Amino acid sequence: MKTILATTATALVLSAGVFSPAVANEAAIKARQSLMQLYAFNLGQLGAMAKGTMEYDSGAAQAAADNLLAAASMNQMAMWPEGSDNVAMAGKTAALPEIWTTFPKITESSQALVAAAESMASVAGNDLDSLRGAMGEIGKSCGGCHKSFRASND
Amino acid sequence: MKTILATTATALVLSAGVFSPAVANEAAIKARQSLMQLYAFNLGQLGAMAKGTMEYDSGAAQAAADNLLAAASMNQMAMWPEGSDNVAMAGKTAALPEIWTTFPKITESSQALVAAAESMASVAGNDLDSLRGAMGEIGKSCGGCHKSFRASND
Repeated sequence: MKTILATTATALVLSAGVFSPAVANEAAIKARQSLMQLYAFNLGQLGAMAKGTMEYDSGAAQAAADNLLAAASMNQMAMWPEGSDNVAMAGKTAALPEIWTTFPKITESSQALVAAAESMASVAGNDLDSLRGAMGEIGKSCGGCHKSFRASND
Repeated sequence: MKTILATTATALVLSAGVFSPAVANEAAIKARQSLMQLYAFNLGQLGAMAKGTMEYDSGAAQAAADNLLAAASMNQMAMWPEGSDNVAMAGKTAALPEIWTTFPKITESSQALVAAAESMASVAGNDLDSLRGAMGEIGKSCGGCHKSFRASND
């Protein structure tokens, strides 16, 4: 164990990993929000190319699509503990209790995102029209989760 | 394009993807910090099991290790644009200009993390001792980047 604790970086990581329920829920919320940020960043690149506000670049498009697929494919079980909804953790998250009361319904949405990201990753590096053609399915899969399982900002 | 803009979710994503240099740098900084959060969350789970503050669970350990490997393997080129260092973007990031002035030196550190994450992912689900044995290499690879390329908090 000495080597494990030898570096500050690892010590910080270890200290972040423990674990009253509230602290664990906050860490889980932060992790899933980070994952959403990565969706948004990579989708932002693809979307900007689709809209023409960023020049289409085959390598960059493929990288963004591959990253989106890698992020969407992550195992999120530890990121959604019961009790990490927007009632129990008010002000910290917009995640509705319906995520847990209707589980595993939400996994349909995440599977739809994985499928859409797979389609995107299979064509994004080909050309701009192919990328544009794959955007709609992605948008639909985002909405599938956000409409049913996330509190509105209104 | 109509379908692309049809959902609020996608519209938000698209609007996040554009692109004065300062706005682009902030988005890139947020993306890489989100990636580090995902490293920390998954390493936190593995570290807690290694320390014994969280009970070892083969499936959870494997999931955390797979997530860490997926995160470490992402293409980060778009996340580190020139001009997104802690001088140009003071207060937003701890990333030292040395990342860019010595490039591609930093890629050695990220390759070391990928290698360490591969070792972890190949054993984390086996048993607790195997997981513990793979922690040291991970900590070393974290330190390799943080010591040379990140401003200290002191």
